[in-house]
Amino acid sequence: MTTPTESEAARAPDLQALLEAGDEAAARAAVADLHPADLADLLDAIEEPERQLQLFRLLDPEAASEVLREVGERTRATLVELLSDARLSAVLERLDTDDAADLLGHLEEDRKDRLLRRASPEVRRNVAGLLTYPEDSAGGIMKTEVATATTSDTVREVIDSIRRQPDDFHDLHDVYVTDGRGRLKGRVPLRSLLLWDDETPMERFMETETISVDVDLDQEEVARVFEKYDLVSVPVLDGLGRVVGRITVDDIVDVISEEATEDILKLAGVGDEDFTSASPLDAVRSRLPWLLFNFVTASISALIIAQFEDTIRQVAVAAALMTVISDMAGNAGTQTMTVLVRGIALGEAKGPQARRLLAREALASLLNGALLGLSAAVIVWIWRSDFRLAVVMGFALLINLQVSAAVGTLVPLVLRSASLDPAVSSSVLVTAATDWAGFFVFLGLLKLML
Amino acid sequence: MTTPTESEAARAPDLQALLEAGDEAAARAAVADLHPADLADLLDAIEEPERQLQLFRLLDPEAASEVLREVGERTRATLVELLSDARLSAVLERLDTDDAADLLGHLEEDRKDRLLRRASPEVRRNVAGLLTYPEDSAGGIMKTEVATATTSDTVREVIDSIRRQPDDFHDLHDVYVTDGRGRLKGRVPLRSLLLWDDETPMERFMETETISVDVDLDQEEVARVFEKYDLVSVPVLDGLGRVVGRITVDDIVDVISEEATEDILKLAGVGDEDFTSASPLDAVRSRLPWLLFNFVTASISALIIAQFEDTIRQVAVAAALMTVISDMAGNAGTQTMTVLVRGIALGEAKGPQARRLLAREALASLLNGALLGLSAAVIVWIWRSDFRLAVVMGFALLINLQVSAAVGTLVPLVLRSASLDPAVSSSVLVTAATDWAGFFVFLGLLKLML
Repeated sequence: MTTPTESEAARAPDLQALLEAGDEAAARAAVADLHPADLADLLDAIEEPERQLQLFRLLDPEAASEVLREVGERTRATLVELLSDARLSAVLERLDTDDAADLLGHLEEDRKDRLLRRASPEVRRNVAGLLTYPEDSAGGIMKTEVATATTSDTVREVIDSIRRQPDDFHDLHDVYVTDGRGRLKGRVPLRSLLLWDDETPMERFMETETISVDVDLDQEEVARVFEKYDLVSVPVLDGLGRVVGRITVDDIVDVISEEATEDILKLAGVGDEDFTSASPLDAVRSRLPWLLFNFVTASISALIIAQFEDTIRQVAVAAALMTVISDMAGNAGTQTMTVLVRGIALGEAKGPQARRLLAREALASLLNGALLGLSAAVIVWIWRSDFRLAVVMGFALLINLQVSAAVGTLVPLVLRSASLDPAVSSSVLVTAATDWAGFFVFLGLLKLML
Repeated sequence: MTTPTESEAARAPDLQALLEAGDEAAARAAVADLHPADLADLLDAIEEPERQLQLFRLLDPEAASEVLREVGERTRATLVELLSDARLSAVLERLDTDDAADLLGHLEEDRKDRLLRRASPEVRRNVAGLLTYPEDSAGGIMKTEVATATTSDTVREVIDSIRRQPDDFHDLHDVYVTDGRGRLKGRVPLRSLLLWDDETPMERFMETETISVDVDLDQEEVARVFEKYDLVSVPVLDGLGRVVGRITVDDIVDVISEEATEDILKLAGVGDEDFTSASPLDAVRSRLPWLLFNFVTASISALIIAQFEDTIRQVAVAAALMTVISDMAGNAGTQTMTVLVRGIALGEAKGPQARRLLAREALASLLNGALLGLSAAVIVWIWRSDFRLAVVMGFALLINLQVSAAVGTLVPLVLRSASLDPAVSSSVLVTAATDWAGFFVFLGLLKLML
């Protein structure tokens, strides 16, 4: 399975053909060979809900739970809608607690309650607890399946306890060592259990400098902790320092990817949009607000320009030149803003770093502005043989690139210090400010020179 | 260590003060308690190279190697420059092969050769091999420390072999089972070694559906495999199916973060820029090319507008209104393009998905265009009491939003099918196209109506 994606993609039409022909036995055999993640891809690629359900029904509860974990949100919503409570209950019992909570969290209240009542006491207790945490906090992404030991437990005892519940620990990496009150005292990687003799107690070799996260910590901060300390899993502690769960790196990989997507879309003025499953109306809903906001900022630009109608009537080519200035400053501002927003998101724009960044942006925009301003002035002079127009063009471009650097750096920094997400200081904001300044400076200078 | 970042940050000034006072003993004691990742942060925050070196010299070779792995590129370059060959050799011997190759790969040729000659035969062989792979391929990010076993090896034998070289396997998750020729046959998670009795052979319980990657695979594709299959580590195979290394998820977390940063910066027209360590000149170098390109596209806009000088002289307010149209279309086009570029990057814009996306973007832009066009027409009518101007405004906005959707979807798709990176179809390209169309359509319609 070196290149799984290609080989599996080739099987998709076969399976669809089998399903359409109603050959369930052959389809079931084809499905049995596939990795749940590949089955999930197949399901995502099928358009008709009934066909999706037909394929999903071929799976045993174990495979079904793994596949439901992997499918896209659109497919999951469809399947969950169509599945009976009995079938969904069977899946829930087999899911890890974090995935079960995630699934239940997306259901309507009454269905969620119905399923929780059906669930085994263990699932009900664990999952209901997880549902109380905010979705994007450490508590919201952790699972409660944790292997713990006390400081005096021996290697043999710990291994025996893992053997007693192998299903809970399919992705186990560390055993957490706690005191009598459940408070974290250390960490034992599975590897260490292999290295030490049966009778060795945990306290002998546990790592005491254990990184942990608070149950309330934002998932983006949790991801930063994983990145910084190169973790594979991390224990989650409540306010009293007790281990209440753990977060594994596979969920963090998703968080990092999601947060990057969110930032990229926000920077472009696209709201909260699940871009594969969004309908045309969803797309309008997530983008129209920024377009309307942009409509207002553009109208202000228009009003600024309208103040100079006389100037434009006299020098009609000004209408052409002013767009160059606003356009270039908008792009330069977007560059600066993007560099800063990303730096902030990666936690790299603080303290001395931030000062260095500001100084750099100021100097870079001065250099870019001088270079581009001079070029523009020379070109205008050659084109229109109008020295005054050339001077206005050059200075306006130079000045407006400084405005763009100031707006591009200050807006994200101010938003951050106001504890707002700097990514929403999207291109719309920066281009609005550079447009206003650009039109005003250019037309203003021109009017003065006439 | 629940909130490590805060507590460590507080220690930074202390340590700096100790260093300035020359109290090495106290500084060494303070340093001994710190996690390498925190020490790396401290080093990154220090401005003066000599102070960085002073702090780094306090570390024993083991800690030094871990810290050097964690520091930012700027700090690493400084330290490597200042360290003696002897000291750097000691660090290299302790690094994992992937990190050693990474470090050597950034050195000048003659220093690299000098250090390789000094290295132990084992390091020389492994690391020199890794240096032959492209930096952004699976081979470029893998390490050669792999735990392998044959199908007939027993649990006891495998555990004994791990015990013989514990240093190589500080981050071991899986043992790879190979045939007599080193070809991958299966995978045994450490957890399974704990669950089975000493005499059980690997073939009895190994997982045979093992995901692996080819040594030539691009690192972005490797990251996609990790995401899809929720992996913690993956074996890397050569052309003959033999295990030549493994990639661990901590490196993949970095890859995902880097690739997202690259896309974000490219979308904004910022070239290859290491945004924390870049100097003002670097910043000019990475951004000026797009600004110059933008200068050309904006000049074309200006030339288009200049064709309508007579029209503008007659209706000077046209200069104000046309900016609203180009501005809004630019933003709408950027929204569409961003959604598509991100969808492509996440592998979610292919087959039926792509068709659905195109249909959605077409419909969404029609709705947005009709709504905004009508609003703009009404506002212009009220403002200027000019019915013709209002009609021109409304239609021009409607038409240009369709242009923006077409440009925003087609440019990334065309670039992808030409195997180019869709992210370089940055805002500059989209705003250029929407500007040209916007000015031409609006001023053209207006001229016809006069």
